[in-house]
Amino acid sequence: MKLYDTARAPNPRRVRIFLAEKGIQVPTEQVDIMGKMAKSDAFTALNPLQRVPVLELDDGTVITESVAICRYFEEIQPEPPLMGRNAVEKAQVEMWNRRVELGVFAAVANAFRHAHPAMSGLEVPQVKEWADANRPKALEAMKFLDRVLADRPFVAGELFSIADITLLCALDFARVPKIAIADEHVNLKRWHAQVSSRPSAKA
Amino acid sequence: MKLYDTARAPNPRRVRIFLAEKGIQVPTEQVDIMGKMAKSDAFTALNPLQRVPVLELDDGTVITESVAICRYFEEIQPEPPLMGRNAVEKAQVEMWNRRVELGVFAAVANAFRHAHPAMSGLEVPQVKEWADANRPKALEAMKFLDRVLADRPFVAGELFSIADITLLCALDFARVPKIAIADEHVNLKRWHAQVSSRPSAKA
Repeated sequence: MKLYDTARAPNPRRVRIFLAEKGIQVPTEQVDIMGKMAKSDAFTALNPLQRVPVLELDDGTVITESVAICRYFEEIQPEPPLMGRNAVEKAQVEMWNRRVELGVFAAVANAFRHAHPAMSGLEVPQVKEWADANRPKALEAMKFLDRVLADRPFVAGELFSIADITLLCALDFARVPKIAIADEHVNLKRWHAQVSSRPSAKA
Repeated sequence: MKLYDTARAPNPRRVRIFLAEKGIQVPTEQVDIMGKMAKSDAFTALNPLQRVPVLELDDGTVITESVAICRYFEEIQPEPPLMGRNAVEKAQVEMWNRRVELGVFAAVANAFRHAHPAMSGLEVPQVKEWADANRPKALEAMKFLDRVLADRPFVAGELFSIADITLLCALDFARVPKIAIADEHVNLKRWHAQVSSRPSAKA
């Protein structure tokens, strides 16, 4: 088994934190997503979309998309549960993970990808107006999550889940396009400090 | 149990087809997503994001996000399986569903939401340049899926899955922003005709 990883990219970090929470170690290979390796024939054969992360199983099966890779590990090692323990929990974790993905992660990614000069070769065309439009979208979603976290410890409820991992990776990556948690969002700040103190956050 | 639904919107259709494939009937209430009901206090209490679909369980539990609602039904009634039967299948269905969501569904939705006058109140600001940028993205993803479908009957492999449902809803909705399957994409056309002939496609 091998995980194709890019140390500084936010999506592979979701998988690294997920694995750290599970206590699973997987050999990794670093992919320079801006460089030649991502466009090489060998990597394109693994993932025609030329993105990380990619998980290659020992029988050659390839799984891409961060949450799909996480789901594989959740299925083969359910403990500790990070995607819910029963039908309602699984649905609610899925709901919160998607709300965070659409509201924060995608908005932060768009604010970065459509404005940063380093992304001009990967995001074609860059639409500056779309980058600008996403900054208030990210802040609005953070305001929503601040209210949600007023009366619960984690995004999906009482249990730490993949939704917390997605939000942590999105908010930490948001430093690049200079989107910060507002001072008045005390619940989101408290949550961020607490989740950042988990050993898995170093992954 | 009640499903808040909007007959003409593509996301609720994903849930309706999923339920039809499972043979599950759920009472529905129609929500005019452009109208006052979506912004009413009662509906906003159910889904602060004011979007459909929304599933309300008998105990008051609320699940939003199409795939989260589908996951709830997959868990309480696994047959027929629409999200994979084991760890590898579940991960691969998740991977393909997300590839379709990101590559086709989101591109089609952006081409519509950022250009159509009827969406000016829901998509603020509309970024016309972003609508235009998404049309070739949708076509590129359709080209990729055409190649994938050259040697398998369904998007994720041998089994019909939620990834097929997402693609069908995206391609049918693509008629609104006038994005069509290219004539040379014969595999995608064959797949579309076959999946459209399933009774569930009428949902």
